[in-house]
Amino acid sequence: ELVERVMAQFAEKILAGKRVVITAGPTREAIDPVRYLSNHSSGKMGFALAEAAAQAGADVVLVSGPVSLPTPVGCLRVDVDSAEEMKAAVMSAVADSDVFIACAAVADYRAEKIADQKIKKKTDTLTLNLIKNPDILAEVSALSKRPYCVGFAAETEQVLTHAEDKLTRKKLDMIFANDVSRSDIGFGCENNAITALIRRGNGVEQQDLPAQPKRTLARALIQLIAKEYTPHHG
Amino acid sequence: ELVERVMAQFAEKILAGKRVVITAGPTREAIDPVRYLSNHSSGKMGFALAEAAAQAGADVVLVSGPVSLPTPVGCLRVDVDSAEEMKAAVMSAVADSDVFIACAAVADYRAEKIADQKIKKKTDTLTLNLIKNPDILAEVSALSKRPYCVGFAAETEQVLTHAEDKLTRKKLDMIFANDVSRSDIGFGCENNAITALIRRGNGVEQQDLPAQPKRTLARALIQLIAKEYTPHHG
Repeated sequence: ELVERVMAQFAEKILAGKRVVITAGPTREAIDPVRYLSNHSSGKMGFALAEAAAQAGADVVLVSGPVSLPTPVGCLRVDVDSAEEMKAAVMSAVADSDVFIACAAVADYRAEKIADQKIKKKTDTLTLNLIKNPDILAEVSALSKRPYCVGFAAETEQVLTHAEDKLTRKKLDMIFANDVSRSDIGFGCENNAITALIRRGNGVEQQDLPAQPKRTLARALIQLIAKEYTPHHG
Repeated sequence: ELVERVMAQFAEKILAGKRVVITAGPTREAIDPVRYLSNHSSGKMGFALAEAAAQAGADVVLVSGPVSLPTPVGCLRVDVDSAEEMKAAVMSAVADSDVFIACAAVADYRAEKIADQKIKKKTDTLTLNLIKNPDILAEVSALSKRPYCVGFAAETEQVLTHAEDKLTRKKLDMIFANDVSRSDIGFGCENNAITALIRRGNGVEQQDLPAQPKRTLARALIQLIAKEYTPHHG
């Protein structure tokens, strides 16, 4: 903890004066008043990024789904539940921001209709009709005046293929890919390993960051973003 | 905390030598490696019951879904994720037990098929086919040599009607009904209010326990169970 504080004090303020918006955690999509759909995101990576960005001097807005984590020092935290709520909070926070990091594991689908009352288990089977949630990162990336856009690709197979596809399709500046099928890194773990794909004109540069605690990895990722970020976007 | 410890020391050992199995928390039903279905149960009520039962002298096995709670002193805790896992743990623990308290909010349905890989969001809509989970409490209640069976009914409407129906249908000895549509009690709250329905021959007796902290309510419920419990079941 002392080491952390000393490191924080000596950290170069490489994002001084920059406004950074970061999403973290899962979203919860209600099915009825008691049941929901969610995913295994712990929020640790997004919170570590928010902490690292604040230590680098940025004004950080952290839009978080339901997680059990303390707010990093120096961050303005906005708690949300569903993807729709997260989108509203992000769209409000992202105006005039310099960097947007979409680290939340936003639920891709939500229930077409949320039941007012607890669904009774009358039948042996139940069909849940789901509709697509808004793609928050793609919507931010499509803004006419937009921040530097960084995405995450948490995949279980063909990790780099899916990540590069997402980088291109959503017109991102950078994407961090990780393999959540590995039990030693990713969801719920203390460690993470990332492959960063960085857009360079028409090409893509790849940088590998080996498995390490999420907090030190977050500092490396924030350094990478600060180095790559050029304030000519929009 | 001191008061708690003193009260615990002076508590009558009304369940001394009895074996009590308690389930707590939600279950999580995987959809694919990252997504799941769950519900808003915090596990607080079940953990408070386990603590109160242990303080009353019982040997307690606490079968818990995924929650963020410390294990109550003197309880043997078994952590599980899905309803199927909870059923296996309960069926193993419940043999030769005296009392079974089903406090977990077991997911009523699970995915018919768990995808091996993360489902890609290719389509605008998605249909999830769900099948019914095992009814752990009904299965314990149907055992030829069975413990005193206590259920919970967390309802959002017609609370007592649904609770009495559950008491009869699952052939329980007692059921604790609570209205989870009230924001001041129930899921995630510190307080809870319970109406106990107790089978008396062909009739049902009703006892109301007003809103109070879950830990003091748990002691009252354990006292009620100890008073009603008669070891002639099976």
